[in-house]
Amino acid sequence: MADKPEAVSKAAEITAQGEKVRELKTAKAEKNDIDQAVKILLSLKAEYKEIAGCDYGPPKKDKKQVEQKVNSDKQKEKEAKKAAKKAKAAELRAKEKAEKGVTQQEKKVENSSAAKDDTEESKKNYGDYGIINSSEVIEREFASVGDLDESMDKKSVWIRARLHNSRAQGSAMVFMTLRESQFTCQALLLADIEKGVSKQMLKYAASLSKESIIDIHADVVKSPTKIESCTQKNVELKVKQFFVVSKSLPILPLQIEDASRAEKADGEPDDGLVRVNPDTRLDNRVLDLRTTTKHAIFRIQAAVCRLFRNHLTNKGFTEIHTPKIISAASEGGANVFTLSYFKRDAFLAQSPQLYKQMAIAADFEKVFTTGAVFRAEDSNTHRHLTEFVGLDMEMAFKYHYHEVLREIGDTFISIFKGLRAECRREVDTVNEQYPRDEFEFLEPSLVLEFPEALKMLRDNGVEIGDEDDLSTPVEKFLGKLVKEKYNTDFYILDKYPLAVRPFYTMPDPTDPRYSNSYDMFMRGEEILSGAQRIHDPDLLIERAHHHGINLKHIEAYIEAFKYGCPPHAGGGIGMERVTMLYLGLHNIRMASLFPRDPKRLTP
Amino acid sequence: MADKPEAVSKAAEITAQGEKVRELKTAKAEKNDIDQAVKILLSLKAEYKEIAGCDYGPPKKDKKQVEQKVNSDKQKEKEAKKAAKKAKAAELRAKEKAEKGVTQQEKKVENSSAAKDDTEESKKNYGDYGIINSSEVIEREFASVGDLDESMDKKSVWIRARLHNSRAQGSAMVFMTLRESQFTCQALLLADIEKGVSKQMLKYAASLSKESIIDIHADVVKSPTKIESCTQKNVELKVKQFFVVSKSLPILPLQIEDASRAEKADGEPDDGLVRVNPDTRLDNRVLDLRTTTKHAIFRIQAAVCRLFRNHLTNKGFTEIHTPKIISAASEGGANVFTLSYFKRDAFLAQSPQLYKQMAIAADFEKVFTTGAVFRAEDSNTHRHLTEFVGLDMEMAFKYHYHEVLREIGDTFISIFKGLRAECRREVDTVNEQYPRDEFEFLEPSLVLEFPEALKMLRDNGVEIGDEDDLSTPVEKFLGKLVKEKYNTDFYILDKYPLAVRPFYTMPDPTDPRYSNSYDMFMRGEEILSGAQRIHDPDLLIERAHHHGINLKHIEAYIEAFKYGCPPHAGGGIGMERVTMLYLGLHNIRMASLFPRDPKRLTP
Repeated sequence: MADKPEAVSKAAEITAQGEKVRELKTAKAEKNDIDQAVKILLSLKAEYKEIAGCDYGPPKKDKKQVEQKVNSDKQKEKEAKKAAKKAKAAELRAKEKAEKGVTQQEKKVENSSAAKDDTEESKKNYGDYGIINSSEVIEREFASVGDLDESMDKKSVWIRARLHNSRAQGSAMVFMTLRESQFTCQALLLADIEKGVSKQMLKYAASLSKESIIDIHADVVKSPTKIESCTQKNVELKVKQFFVVSKSLPILPLQIEDASRAEKADGEPDDGLVRVNPDTRLDNRVLDLRTTTKHAIFRIQAAVCRLFRNHLTNKGFTEIHTPKIISAASEGGANVFTLSYFKRDAFLAQSPQLYKQMAIAADFEKVFTTGAVFRAEDSNTHRHLTEFVGLDMEMAFKYHYHEVLREIGDTFISIFKGLRAECRREVDTVNEQYPRDEFEFLEPSLVLEFPEALKMLRDNGVEIGDEDDLSTPVEKFLGKLVKEKYNTDFYILDKYPLAVRPFYTMPDPTDPRYSNSYDMFMRGEEILSGAQRIHDPDLLIERAHHHGINLKHIEAYIEAFKYGCPPHAGGGIGMERVTMLYLGLHNIRMASLFPRDPKRLTP
Repeated sequence: MADKPEAVSKAAEITAQGEKVRELKTAKAEKNDIDQAVKILLSLKAEYKEIAGCDYGPPKKDKKQVEQKVNSDKQKEKEAKKAAKKAKAAELRAKEKAEKGVTQQEKKVENSSAAKDDTEESKKNYGDYGIINSSEVIEREFASVGDLDESMDKKSVWIRARLHNSRAQGSAMVFMTLRESQFTCQALLLADIEKGVSKQMLKYAASLSKESIIDIHADVVKSPTKIESCTQKNVELKVKQFFVVSKSLPILPLQIEDASRAEKADGEPDDGLVRVNPDTRLDNRVLDLRTTTKHAIFRIQAAVCRLFRNHLTNKGFTEIHTPKIISAASEGGANVFTLSYFKRDAFLAQSPQLYKQMAIAADFEKVFTTGAVFRAEDSNTHRHLTEFVGLDMEMAFKYHYHEVLREIGDTFISIFKGLRAECRREVDTVNEQYPRDEFEFLEPSLVLEFPEALKMLRDNGVEIGDEDDLSTPVEKFLGKLVKEKYNTDFYILDKYPLAVRPFYTMPDPTDPRYSNSYDMFMRGEEILSGAQRIHDPDLLIERAHHHGINLKHIEAYIEAFKYGCPPHAGGGIGMERVTMLYLGLHNIRMASLFPRDPKRLTP
């Protein structure tokens, strides 16, 4: 039976070995190596047939498909997903049936065969720690994979890392790839009974499931040739001891290699290799996040926040925290989530704006806040999320809102320069999988006025009215024109038409068609919207009337300005958008750790 | 009629003048000054009677009450609140009736009387800017009130500040107090027609409503005597010009002086002075937040966050952002807010824990996150909020969770030391209004084990079982005992009974009654709860069974640990509690900018 536990575990070995064969082929390895790997694969399949009483899986069909090259990546992905699902179901069934017995049994087998050709010396050098439950304090220095280089030649180190890969090369050698965050290195286990490395120890190492976490005790040695498949290319590890910290299930819902594979450039021919589709990634986010690219993306994102806060703190801004649960849905209640709050209704804040403004009216002068923002908008696009992180700022000014506009522009420049200085390696890592032009910017920032933008668009054949808002495609096109003319991926568009902005936007003092408001763009996409806000309660009421807004709903808002309020302006930045667009990624879900959209609430 | 606009505005003048009299008395001013102020008050009351046709307000009753001293502060507060409410209602009615007409009329009066004894020169030196809508760029250097000291003697400065107070001293002098954030200074306006300061200019200054924002152009001069009522005691400003930036309504729902008044110490006799009750403060939060104490509190709070993040960033932690909207209510769905999410139900996260742990399983190794946390708990206490800011961290460790426990302890020490170094002034400011002993701590942190704590409690007469949790009063008492014995306001209590901790807590490896978990305390109140989490899916399932938890609800959680996860521990800190307890405040609402509790959703 194909769902016998032994068959399932053999199937896993076959899957792993099949992948090794593919890898060797992809890497154009020596013919001998490939042949040997294929031989192992075939013998595994024979063993499978013996156990399961039937041929292994649907390999013929798969082969045919690859030959015909009719399938798109997506279809392949679908099948891989299906197969993984099936395997997982089988695994679960097997587990349910056999429960603990099997594990015990397996362990026994392991031990008895271990006893056969193991030495007492060797048995001390490998094994499973069991669940680390803090039963003992071990003072031990660990090195990081990322630190390994020639300067450490001949040093003895402990490393804790993922087993990215392991494969036996004949019976006397096991190749392992270890992974830690963004870094990988090669480790070698050579049978040498005098040094306490038995063949049984090698077998154990080769059988460990990928993605298990292990402690390795090893000597660092210079590698005779560059190791192209790892980030640490000049050294490898000669393993003396290894212990399992945490075992992974043998069958993974997605392969880290597939999830890490570089995107095909447009027009490049199909390479027949699996790439993981976005939903599979998100369904198995913990695994997807282990790729070096994802590690790099979220380290860059952490830097965006840090640079934003540090810049503003140095400029005298105070961080505040604004409530997410609010009593009234501002701006008429569209696109707002409703929750039940002790037998009444409450809402999730769509922005911290009112509260930032209240902090200004309370004399905090310059404030920023970073936190969750909620939009109940049924938009399923590459750039919308229902929950995202807002990097918001608000600032009192003396006479002209450009005092604030300049400050926001400088904040962006400070973030871009910081990323260039601090995240070179991370940006390069992302570029390997998702190649994109370097992000360009000017210092100080380029500021265009709305009518100038209209002229550029019209000169290039776009028909647009004086007081029309810009649609997303038009924004993108404008971004292209700006890039061509000024060579910047970041610019500020000032003086939007009053008609397309919210009621609290200060009108332009001279031309009633325009307003003291602005958007900011990265690679042609809006990442900040802001304005001088009306700080006078009477004018605010007048403008709310004009917009047909029920004053009852904005009473608290207006109240905030009755006891004197300085003129002020501000804006809100979408953190995920900044990360996405700085790196030129094509989907905002890649820049959200656990994205939320109208269809996705898990994990 | 008492609600005629003229009567209302006269009433406001009376209120203001009455307060001046009280202030002068409180400050034990010269008898002459007090007499003159009383004379003005009486003449204002006479004018009121002429306009309104009746006597002003309920002063007799008030007086009686003060004499009888039967009223508690709370009752006084209630009446002040009622009066303010009434005045506000009157003001609104007056406004509705007379609308714009009055303003125009008043302006005309102002202008005509200004014309009478103003010079052209003088007229250029004061007035109202109108709404600052960025019609011109003015390059002007401003000084801050906090910067004013003797080193600036004889310098000419521009200041933008609140008019904290203004009062005429005879007809040739106006005293003003200016306030900017935590700082106040005295400004003098002396009639001197040759210098372009007319008596009309003085009248205008004296009539400006408190809390208006003004630009002052003035010379800094050393003050002959210390100005005890201001933070800037050694200099004052001789005003040359002033302009209104934003006018406040004349009647305030609370007086900044009342909201700033120092608390009475226990047993101190009633001083007859108004203090503002908590609800009035929160109902009018924008005004309450303007007090120097509140500015200090929220600057300290910003520092807590900054120090937390900087310490962890320096230690190699990565900041992450976790979703607030989640698909399943963990831990059985108690105390969780439900929201409607595109036609299905969703929930607000009670903690970022699952997501922090998933980040660990995804190899981020050390992570922190700061953000909103929601508890639908109907607790109306001094230390519960329904929404607060969590400062959360999670960290993989090698062999023992004390590696993490020490790291968290060090984080607190780093915060406390940072506050001592950076927020001396702010802590002193808060202490003036809310006196409390300085916060004490040991370095490294004191760590006690649960059984030790039990012994201390039992030695002091508390009856408590070996596996009982600590109640809040017991925690407080224990904090007192610890303070007496070790002289620290911060300590860590390790090894809680397993029975009182959540299912995902790692049991103690040797004694099944205990667990690898800990709480941390400031001034005897819990501010962090944490533990080593179970990172093995089988043990997790076993513990969930034991707790009677439906595995379906925690499927995604268990899934996260199937593909290898390092041992890890962490904890979550309540930001508002840290602020409250560091300063020894008695209510958490004082440490939340816009607090949320079961009864409060506004502002």
